[in-house]
Amino acid sequence: MAKRVGADTIEFTNAPLICAWSSTVGPKEGEGPLGNAFDCVLDDDMLGEKSHELGEARMFINTVERLLHKAGKKQNDIDMLIGGDLLNQIMVTHFAARELDMPLLGLYGACSTITEALAIGSCMVDGGSARNVICATSSHFGTAERQYRAPLEMGGQRPPSAQWTVTGSGATLLCGEYSAANPVARITHATIGRVTDYGISDSGNMGAVMAPAAAKTLIAHLKDTGRSPAYYDLILTGDLASIGHALFHELLHEAGFHLDETKSADCGLLMFDKEQGVDAGGSGCGCGAAIFNGPILEKIKRGELKKVAFMATGALLSSISTLQGETIPAVAHLIALERI
Amino acid sequence: MAKRVGADTIEFTNAPLICAWSSTVGPKEGEGPLGNAFDCVLDDDMLGEKSHELGEARMFINTVERLLHKAGKKQNDIDMLIGGDLLNQIMVTHFAARELDMPLLGLYGACSTITEALAIGSCMVDGGSARNVICATSSHFGTAERQYRAPLEMGGQRPPSAQWTVTGSGATLLCGEYSAANPVARITHATIGRVTDYGISDSGNMGAVMAPAAAKTLIAHLKDTGRSPAYYDLILTGDLASIGHALFHELLHEAGFHLDETKSADCGLLMFDKEQGVDAGGSGCGCGAAIFNGPILEKIKRGELKKVAFMATGALLSSISTLQGETIPAVAHLIALERI
Repeated sequence: MAKRVGADTIEFTNAPLICAWSSTVGPKEGEGPLGNAFDCVLDDDMLGEKSHELGEARMFINTVERLLHKAGKKQNDIDMLIGGDLLNQIMVTHFAARELDMPLLGLYGACSTITEALAIGSCMVDGGSARNVICATSSHFGTAERQYRAPLEMGGQRPPSAQWTVTGSGATLLCGEYSAANPVARITHATIGRVTDYGISDSGNMGAVMAPAAAKTLIAHLKDTGRSPAYYDLILTGDLASIGHALFHELLHEAGFHLDETKSADCGLLMFDKEQGVDAGGSGCGCGAAIFNGPILEKIKRGELKKVAFMATGALLSSISTLQGETIPAVAHLIALERI
Repeated sequence: MAKRVGADTIEFTNAPLICAWSSTVGPKEGEGPLGNAFDCVLDDDMLGEKSHELGEARMFINTVERLLHKAGKKQNDIDMLIGGDLLNQIMVTHFAARELDMPLLGLYGACSTITEALAIGSCMVDGGSARNVICATSSHFGTAERQYRAPLEMGGQRPPSAQWTVTGSGATLLCGEYSAANPVARITHATIGRVTDYGISDSGNMGAVMAPAAAKTLIAHLKDTGRSPAYYDLILTGDLASIGHALFHELLHEAGFHLDETKSADCGLLMFDKEQGVDAGGSGCGCGAAIFNGPILEKIKRGELKKVAFMATGALLSSISTLQGETIPAVAHLIALERI
């Protein structure tokens, strides 16, 4: 049984265990500073399919199947697949799920989806609703840019505040006490985010849209648990990138919380080198998912990190609402984990 | 603690309790046979807002606020809001959540979203992750037709197999044993659906797309629990409408299950009279949500129904994938409930 801690946080007592993980990234991500820390770097971001959408679905399927293989599990060992992607009607997840044949809970939380999935999966495992759960998300530069902004063929100009949607996918296997083999970390808490809107309507500046949501969720988590930021070896945000990361620190400072730069990292900044022409940095629900399910969990496994808070952030952008002049809401969900 | 029963079903031992519900429908739905069984029939489906999208968000907010009022709860009594809608990036739910100020888990399961939310909410309450949860969804004729098919102003012809997206919203309050006041029913099981694709690409025939998913989930539920369809006073499907409802019975019959017509109903058929010009019937994630959170729960309260299985069905339609010639996947999630 889990218990509530404060207003927004769940504390797990059976502690869902992370037993295995898998990550895939595209060619450009493979050339970045973390390129050799992912399970698979694609040569071809179409994966031999006839559209970017089907290519992204193939990447999602490959990541989940590789995870099963790494964990020594079969499809029918999995009680639930929980996940989503950035596309309208989470098309990629649904195309993947019709092939993967597992009970599916489909989510939409933009780039926050990976921690939303891990939070729901943890509640399921802790409460006995599932023994083995796979949490997975993906994003793809070709599919997301067309949907949210303009087709790549248009060659549109990007403002310096723009973020580069990561082609990537990550999947985590969560297990209960009795079905876990070689667990590496336990998820101890989840803090569910509240939707925030700071009145920004520029779809080319998502870092500024998401930073207030990230600050709100982290502050809620710290208040609910009575912890200080220093409790964690690393507070990892999803994809705030350079502008959002600076704003996030500023908002925390204004609220009286000091977050040490050496213990704070952002997946949008980790994914690419500045020379790769990605403006403010990376984004997409494959960005945080691939980095968490690659370099971060590997570091935890090696003992280089012990206590980590992972908070993916989502700009809840809709092309229709942007055309209607609406501002962009945002949300961030946090999971806290500890090395075993 | 919940426990797993068979491959796809969760049995709740703390049994999340349904304590209150609320429903809103549009003017056309109010003229239907169930018109006087909803909490609120709108005079104006724009609700005074400047767009259908903002009108739908207002309807969602009003439904949740009325639910709080009916239950005697305040916003900060609610640990989580779980829900979604049909729009890209579940725009309506996010606009509602930025006003409602509750931790949000946003879902996308098309018209299956209401039972997906109720299933996740039940796991949360049963496992101690939440004490009070609101599960809510909405749909709107004006917003959905523009997004999935064509703008209303075009005056496009509808095939006889088409379904009419319901303007409506429904919300349920789920409580744990210790926070429940006047519970009316307990959710005993949830069966999480697997995505099915029968190779249909016609977005004007969603009943045929969803019927195989509904049959698959109901059969899984019956096998997992060892029950026969006769166990239930009512097996209520989300929105198969006339074509899907007939196919659903046919598929069950082929699989060796007999479902008595008098104990089987479909929200898409219940919402409108044939004379209302809705072709095959109603659809939308507000259709099942409003009927469940109106006439059905009222019947359970009055003792006219005791054991009900509610299975909302979703056609996981995307306008992009339809243009790309892809077939339409579908999913159905089931919750079983019993009168207290």
